[in-house]
Amino acid sequence: MRLEQITIKDIARELNVSTSTVSRALKDYPGISDETKRKVKELAEKMDYRPNAIALSLRKSRSFTIGVIIPEVVHFFFSTVISGIEEVAFARGYNVILTQTNEKLVREKSSIATMLSNQIDGVLVSFSKETTDFEHFSNLLAKGFPIVFFDRVPDIDNAITVTVDDYSGAFEATKHLLQQGYRRIAHLSGPSNLKISQERARGYTDALIHHGFTPDPGFIVECNKGTDDEAQKITAEILETFSTKPDAFFANNDMAAVGAMLACKAAGLRVPEDVGIVGFSNWQFCSMIDPSLSSVSQPGFNLGAKATEILLDLIEKKIQLGEYSNSVVLETELLIRKSSVR
Amino acid sequence: MRLEQITIKDIARELNVSTSTVSRALKDYPGISDETKRKVKELAEKMDYRPNAIALSLRKSRSFTIGVIIPEVVHFFFSTVISGIEEVAFARGYNVILTQTNEKLVREKSSIATMLSNQIDGVLVSFSKETTDFEHFSNLLAKGFPIVFFDRVPDIDNAITVTVDDYSGAFEATKHLLQQGYRRIAHLSGPSNLKISQERARGYTDALIHHGFTPDPGFIVECNKGTDDEAQKITAEILETFSTKPDAFFANNDMAAVGAMLACKAAGLRVPEDVGIVGFSNWQFCSMIDPSLSSVSQPGFNLGAKATEILLDLIEKKIQLGEYSNSVVLETELLIRKSSVR
Repeated sequence: MRLEQITIKDIARELNVSTSTVSRALKDYPGISDETKRKVKELAEKMDYRPNAIALSLRKSRSFTIGVIIPEVVHFFFSTVISGIEEVAFARGYNVILTQTNEKLVREKSSIATMLSNQIDGVLVSFSKETTDFEHFSNLLAKGFPIVFFDRVPDIDNAITVTVDDYSGAFEATKHLLQQGYRRIAHLSGPSNLKISQERARGYTDALIHHGFTPDPGFIVECNKGTDDEAQKITAEILETFSTKPDAFFANNDMAAVGAMLACKAAGLRVPEDVGIVGFSNWQFCSMIDPSLSSVSQPGFNLGAKATEILLDLIEKKIQLGEYSNSVVLETELLIRKSSVR
Repeated sequence: MRLEQITIKDIARELNVSTSTVSRALKDYPGISDETKRKVKELAEKMDYRPNAIALSLRKSRSFTIGVIIPEVVHFFFSTVISGIEEVAFARGYNVILTQTNEKLVREKSSIATMLSNQIDGVLVSFSKETTDFEHFSNLLAKGFPIVFFDRVPDIDNAITVTVDDYSGAFEATKHLLQQGYRRIAHLSGPSNLKISQERARGYTDALIHHGFTPDPGFIVECNKGTDDEAQKITAEILETFSTKPDAFFANNDMAAVGAMLACKAAGLRVPEDVGIVGFSNWQFCSMIDPSLSSVSQPGFNLGAKATEILLDLIEKKIQLGEYSNSVVLETELLIRKSSVR
């Protein structure tokens, strides 16, 4: 066994590839074949190569830059979160760099690697739909690297999380539809592996029970992609095939709510007279469409601001990982517009 | 005069501040007072301190990361550009980091500094509404640093630009409204200091002239913010005060078009029967609103992809700055929906 520190050069020499290939393979960068990645990683493990540990311990000075890893920037909710993040970061003298994962685990891992090699001081993460194993985060947390998770958060040790109250948002939306006299409320739900989808479905179900109704599991229909196209097709199908037709739709997101609205109109149903509709997230377009869409507003700006405050406190050692094992949960607000009032 | 290279430490010692303050002041980072920034910069100039030149010449290896500086990520058009950028970058083995300027020059400058200190290989830029002096870009170009400008592009030496054909997009939109029988077409224009706004207004005017109509300068009304609220107020005012009322609106962007539509509806006018409306950018919501909004589609994905191909060719020295002084202009496409067909 060698006593010297193993370097990338040793691995490259052994495999007869360039150091750049080794470096990129270890970081899961694109453009390197899976076969090469496997070989490099296996040898690195065998030779006990530990890059991050060294890089992290060698880091002496702050870069005054924080990283944000999010599924997609086009999402209105995430863009409000980014505004909150930047507001706090700039005020405290930090710059912000963003990467989007496009819901891909491989991009999430290479984002983390990019961030680390760029010497950022800490990172804010909302993970991808594909992510079910959180080792790439746990490893960093174990080394004391500052991470704060927001919106989509993992259930792992030492994770500091900032989320919104999806359950009560869904509860209030469903209660509002009941109060408006709608009785057969269907729920267009999100991907069932995401905690936010589960919480919204739970809020919907509990609101029905709380008001004396028996939830019908057949009335919860998953819209996995969350696009208006998908929801339009699914809603059209529901309206055609269900023997007991819904008189209201509570959707997991606003795009799905729009799809439901378009399908109802196409079927000759009037919104809100015949069918009530409520969405979730309060996208910009809610007040632009006709009838305007009721929606549960999430405090995106505050979420970003709060997560950043905690991250900067960690970086500046005002608080310590482990000591501060807090979960911050922010309130949602139901915004009632025309689509659900009759 | 000293012959040794001046360092940040020398400046810090002289001013009795920390090296971190000097570094951040030079980079225009937030959190440092304007007074300190001024002092540091003055002394740095006096002592002939040249940070970027050194950093750039010392750079030996590629980071396989490119930077993107854009006004705001929430803008649908920019998000499609980002998708195009990432598609090409990932395929060629590069990662992408983003910063948004929120239309502020100071943030644009600190973004550039962050990018450079993070050792990115090159940068894609669409500049902020505030930017009128392009020295922070010219300096880098003069040092041979790879930059490609897209959408909002400066008129400076050696700048490689990728844009869309705003002129012909506006021309086609206006021609379409004329062909549908609309005769008094108003233009809700964008900020007059942006070239894209000027080109769209020029396309509108030329289409009128080309079809034998005399443009009325009073029918071009600037919507500076480009929000639906602003356009709704402005349109309501136009409908109330103009003696000759417009029977169509061609808007510089889709948000303004939505504002115009809401104002027309509120004034009891039917779209498209009484008033025709066409927007620009083809945001996602165009097909969701009622009536669906005709709009000029910009090839955002292709724009991002093309700009990235050129940037990576520069980085990999397949082409050279100066040799390749190309302006790439991509075609737009008018998407006709219900709001402008009668």
